[in-house]
Amino acid sequence: MAGKMTTIDGNTAATHVAYAFSEVAAIYPITPSSNMGELADAWAAQGRQNILDRTVSVVEMQSEAGAAGAVHGSLSAGALTTTFTASQGLLLMIPNMHKIAGEMLPAVFHVSARSLATQSLSIFGDHSDVMSCRNTGFAMLASASVQEVLDLATVAHLTTLQSDIPFLHFFDGFRTSHEVQKVEIIDYDTLKGLFDFEQLARFRNRAMRPDKPIIKVGAQNPDVYFQGREASNRYYNALPGLVQETMDRLARITGRQYHLFDYVGAPDATKVVVVMGSGCETVEETVNYLCKRGEKVGAVKVRLYRPFAADRFVDALPQTVEKVAVLDRTKEPGSQGEPLYLDIRAALADRDVRVIGGRYGLSSKEFTPSMVNAVFRHLDQSGFHGFTVGINDDVTNLSLSVDELIDTEDPEVVRCMFWGLGSDGTVGANKDSIKLIGDNTDMYAQGYFVYDSKKSGGITISHLRFGKKPIASPYLISTADFVACHNPAYIGRYDMISCLKPDGVFLLNSEWSNDEVFARLTSDMQELIIERNIRFYNINALDISMRAGLGQRINTVMQTAFFKISGVLPEEQAIKLIKDSLKKRFITKGEDIVKQNWECVDATAAALQEVKAPGSLSEAKGSYQPKALIAEDASDFARNVILPVMHQQGDSIPVSKMSYDGILPTATSALEKRGIAPRVPQWQPDNCIQCNICSMSCPHGVIRAKQIAPDDLESAPDGFHTIKSGTKNERDLRYRIQVYCEDCTG
Amino acid sequence: MAGKMTTIDGNTAATHVAYAFSEVAAIYPITPSSNMGELADAWAAQGRQNILDRTVSVVEMQSEAGAAGAVHGSLSAGALTTTFTASQGLLLMIPNMHKIAGEMLPAVFHVSARSLATQSLSIFGDHSDVMSCRNTGFAMLASASVQEVLDLATVAHLTTLQSDIPFLHFFDGFRTSHEVQKVEIIDYDTLKGLFDFEQLARFRNRAMRPDKPIIKVGAQNPDVYFQGREASNRYYNALPGLVQETMDRLARITGRQYHLFDYVGAPDATKVVVVMGSGCETVEETVNYLCKRGEKVGAVKVRLYRPFAADRFVDALPQTVEKVAVLDRTKEPGSQGEPLYLDIRAALADRDVRVIGGRYGLSSKEFTPSMVNAVFRHLDQSGFHGFTVGINDDVTNLSLSVDELIDTEDPEVVRCMFWGLGSDGTVGANKDSIKLIGDNTDMYAQGYFVYDSKKSGGITISHLRFGKKPIASPYLISTADFVACHNPAYIGRYDMISCLKPDGVFLLNSEWSNDEVFARLTSDMQELIIERNIRFYNINALDISMRAGLGQRINTVMQTAFFKISGVLPEEQAIKLIKDSLKKRFITKGEDIVKQNWECVDATAAALQEVKAPGSLSEAKGSYQPKALIAEDASDFARNVILPVMHQQGDSIPVSKMSYDGILPTATSALEKRGIAPRVPQWQPDNCIQCNICSMSCPHGVIRAKQIAPDDLESAPDGFHTIKSGTKNERDLRYRIQVYCEDCTG
Repeated sequence: MAGKMTTIDGNTAATHVAYAFSEVAAIYPITPSSNMGELADAWAAQGRQNILDRTVSVVEMQSEAGAAGAVHGSLSAGALTTTFTASQGLLLMIPNMHKIAGEMLPAVFHVSARSLATQSLSIFGDHSDVMSCRNTGFAMLASASVQEVLDLATVAHLTTLQSDIPFLHFFDGFRTSHEVQKVEIIDYDTLKGLFDFEQLARFRNRAMRPDKPIIKVGAQNPDVYFQGREASNRYYNALPGLVQETMDRLARITGRQYHLFDYVGAPDATKVVVVMGSGCETVEETVNYLCKRGEKVGAVKVRLYRPFAADRFVDALPQTVEKVAVLDRTKEPGSQGEPLYLDIRAALADRDVRVIGGRYGLSSKEFTPSMVNAVFRHLDQSGFHGFTVGINDDVTNLSLSVDELIDTEDPEVVRCMFWGLGSDGTVGANKDSIKLIGDNTDMYAQGYFVYDSKKSGGITISHLRFGKKPIASPYLISTADFVACHNPAYIGRYDMISCLKPDGVFLLNSEWSNDEVFARLTSDMQELIIERNIRFYNINALDISMRAGLGQRINTVMQTAFFKISGVLPEEQAIKLIKDSLKKRFITKGEDIVKQNWECVDATAAALQEVKAPGSLSEAKGSYQPKALIAEDASDFARNVILPVMHQQGDSIPVSKMSYDGILPTATSALEKRGIAPRVPQWQPDNCIQCNICSMSCPHGVIRAKQIAPDDLESAPDGFHTIKSGTKNERDLRYRIQVYCEDCTG
Repeated sequence: MAGKMTTIDGNTAATHVAYAFSEVAAIYPITPSSNMGELADAWAAQGRQNILDRTVSVVEMQSEAGAAGAVHGSLSAGALTTTFTASQGLLLMIPNMHKIAGEMLPAVFHVSARSLATQSLSIFGDHSDVMSCRNTGFAMLASASVQEVLDLATVAHLTTLQSDIPFLHFFDGFRTSHEVQKVEIIDYDTLKGLFDFEQLARFRNRAMRPDKPIIKVGAQNPDVYFQGREASNRYYNALPGLVQETMDRLARITGRQYHLFDYVGAPDATKVVVVMGSGCETVEETVNYLCKRGEKVGAVKVRLYRPFAADRFVDALPQTVEKVAVLDRTKEPGSQGEPLYLDIRAALADRDVRVIGGRYGLSSKEFTPSMVNAVFRHLDQSGFHGFTVGINDDVTNLSLSVDELIDTEDPEVVRCMFWGLGSDGTVGANKDSIKLIGDNTDMYAQGYFVYDSKKSGGITISHLRFGKKPIASPYLISTADFVACHNPAYIGRYDMISCLKPDGVFLLNSEWSNDEVFARLTSDMQELIIERNIRFYNINALDISMRAGLGQRINTVMQTAFFKISGVLPEEQAIKLIKDSLKKRFITKGEDIVKQNWECVDATAAALQEVKAPGSLSEAKGSYQPKALIAEDASDFARNVILPVMHQQGDSIPVSKMSYDGILPTATSALEKRGIAPRVPQWQPDNCIQCNICSMSCPHGVIRAKQIAPDDLESAPDGFHTIKSGTKNERDLRYRIQVYCEDCTG
């Protein structure tokens, strides 16, 4: 079957399958799994039918503990049931998970794996939550990409019903849950064809029903509990075989063949990396790169983590392997090694293989081919066990240095980065661009979106890839063909363009004219543009969208500009796709709105002119000198931690600068002057009636009303206007509205 | 220091230390840890002072999740804080435990380790709860006996403050938490001398205080979380050394030297068992037994499980070791092996040692020297990994057969068993006997109490050991010097005396005369008494205590009888001790109550006469033929599961007879006719006014009022009395109160 190609994120993929096979979904939202529950809820509200031609009953509980309890109850009553969660939310489900598995109830929990809160909370992705469930008796199946989420979620739902063993199906939070990918979807008719209705009947027959009373959840004493606990052994023994059979069955339909452990690389490899989750794709890409260069390397991608079928792992590994590095995306302080390492170590007890383990990617820390390469180099040197990769550990010196930077990506892939402001529409427009290209051309597309924690008004960086072949590369773009900066305040604050390839494109949104804009760049940027022959475009998006009647939303302008100059699609086709899309989105609001948007597209296409860079730096009419973001006498913490974070360079902060117990100094937000507002309020003293409502209405406390004693005004600078204070006083107080421009979010 | 010897259980020992070192205890009761919270609460109510001369603030929360949250908050505020829990209660604490460890807050959680509810709930002991916490970042310290609970709880509280790493201090639920032992207690002055007040000041200084504001519990993003997570490495690296230093410091005071891993056995052992918790004592006893017979065996007792100091484990193991069996008291379905196995497997990766793992003792399943011997025999044969010991697994055939029964106990130890009825006072009297002997003589004493789940009216079996040397043997008595049966209904139902040694003593409480009592025994019992020359005593305890004015409480009689004939102490000394104890207990209630009890003691001593058994079975004047407990046509479940459980032989039920998912048939309690009441109510038709209050007042529904149609009475047996029904009716209905004697609990 060639299924329909569609462009979705991992959470949508998981929900597509979960909805198909469920009658009940008991949910409680937690980032990054919330969308799964939200989607299921929305589809149910729309009356979407599952493969049993019923609408799923979606129940939101008071917490994840309640959701797990509801799942347990629903399963006991014989309803196909699912849930979605992550992190500490998953931890709240653990007590019920032991019961669900103990009672051999088929279910699938879809988990967008996320860090546990420890020294600090973090909403980002790693395996510390799912690894906390490895002793619950749940089967654990890991997906490495959005396509795998679709495929392995299907395997999980089909196998749980056959095996009576519940599944925890997981994939990396954000990296896979929120990555947008073009994938082949499996439609509900096909899923229904795979479903075993006899097993469903068997499940219903085991349920608690008034017409066939049973006793459950009894108490067992020392005389019989142990025997009861061993009675499930043969079910666990059978499970790996059942999972493989289901994988084979699915492969016959989709052509995508999975195994419990998939080996990739040289058939005669001597060095192998073992990994699970999205890291698989990065490792595979690197292994292919190194193999092409003649290295004898390989990788094992772990799909079924529990039950751990050691024999199948050993079978998957070439006989030639001498050294194995096991990469765990979790940290268990006080352990000899992380969980996957311990398992591989035990599985290879009888083979003469050196096994070491290391940590990577905690809390969505970047994991790149260069890091994988560093791990292979570490194996070359028979390096130590217990390393880390991706950070600079200058305290316990466990980190590998990643000196050799390699680019393993397909050179045909077009890579684009967009620096936007939270809620300026950049991310939404980019998601739309990916869908446009993914759904309307035969090209593949991938999108990943980085946010800071300020949400609206924070920074967003969109990483988009487009290519003729499927795109793996689950890591940020480090070498770009196209960079767009949607906010001129970012100039001099963030290093945006040093990743650009020679002849790449840089698109800037600013209110500066094309004549003056080059001089508004820092000299570093100017030098780079000249040296690499960057094609530099400048556009006043705000002006165009205002004139088209679209207000401050600059996304249509910027999207059009991107399509026009990025070269991802031929310009004519691109403009047509955008216009079609705008029509589809706005037709319900009226023909005139569509027309406004189309005009905006045309105006952008017309306005976009390349900025001519001077031939050399000396010809530039000046450059922008960024102000230091923090005072010279700032504290160590401000200089070593806050400052790099403000420059989006937190990755470079070494371990020694971090608090060991999560304790931080107070009042540091005062240090961060972001200056992100394209327009700020201006006080009109002549019109002011001193009502102070402007001050009350600013949610950021940026507009402040002040009364000032005349003495204090003596050394006031020129232009520091004040008016007579209208409050009753005998001190001749003056009055002023002061706007703190650098804190304003516009 | 020779500390004061006292006779307490493990929970009291843990609370003694926890109370000393805590300012706050946030609790929520769960078996078998409830007593710890209760004791702390009672001591606080009594105004007992900790080593800081303050009363501990004990706060009961709404659940264990709340208790953990309160601990977290209290620690954040800089108060020394503890809690007590087990099983699913501990699971509810996991989310907070990650935070407490992540924030490097010193604390000790005392856990009486208990099974997790899976296919069934169980309140009994194993390590499945604590093993679920091995990734929380808590240090984990295991105590194997009541004395170790005192010592290692002290180590935990002292080291946590030095290291900033919280401790989970655990010991086996029931086996250690409820075992009564004579131990050397460490007084609070000594504990205070060990306490480091500088570390306390450092802890207070790290706390959240209004006068020194800090930020905690922030959010970290991918840029810095990983580095922050590695910042605690050096604290974990330092911890094993700190624990050992504290153990050494304690040893200088108590003379009891512990190590992170303690090796016992032959210095040139080739086979070694690794174990943790109370099983250590059983393994050590067996190793000593086998070594005396020239075997080259040994054992490693694991004390510090997290951080797992692999180097220290390897150092502890003799170089000569070829084969290692790791015993885990937990089961993680779907794993390759249980947690301790995986750790030892990894620790020995570089040594040419064959390592296998096995499960034992789930949910307080007995773990005896014969089973340990079976493990060594399994090692002899280079047996398979993943075995179980202690059950008959006839499905997956993983269980070792325990054919060779060995007795490793000191022959000087006097071993006594008491079969009582829940709330008949037997257990209380036995605890008193242990305290009497432990606290007033130089003898050591151990008591362990087995209950079924019927509580009041159920069966209790007390296992008491007395000896000149400290007693380990944390398993039930299988070869006894003395057996008492406090309820004649047990004859023919339970196998009570086949464990008796030749010349042992059997004491029966019954209302039969000494002349007729022998004929009331089963022929099996009669034969055994004759063959082994058992000294058989019969006493009408109810009669004696009624006559002394003590009502139905037979414990004073039975305790006196035990002391008189067991030979544990010389009779005169024993009687004096009992009388002193009775005086102490009852003097507040008046001299006459004391006198009544003393009379009861004297009457018992006078009445107790040995029953002369006939020379051979053929001379017996008949014997008791027990009725089958269930009908011949009973279901398979009734025959295979209910019946052995009713005979206290549930241990013999094989895996194949157990439900794999915990589902049981309904209405099986109707099968169990216990017949335990020494006296049952009798209906007096002549006095009956048909008010039915007797029926309403029986909590077990044993007294039932019936109206009977005359036709139905036609085939009634003789003596089936009825009276005319007083209710208005035209059918000449008859009336009767029917007592269901076999269900009556007296």
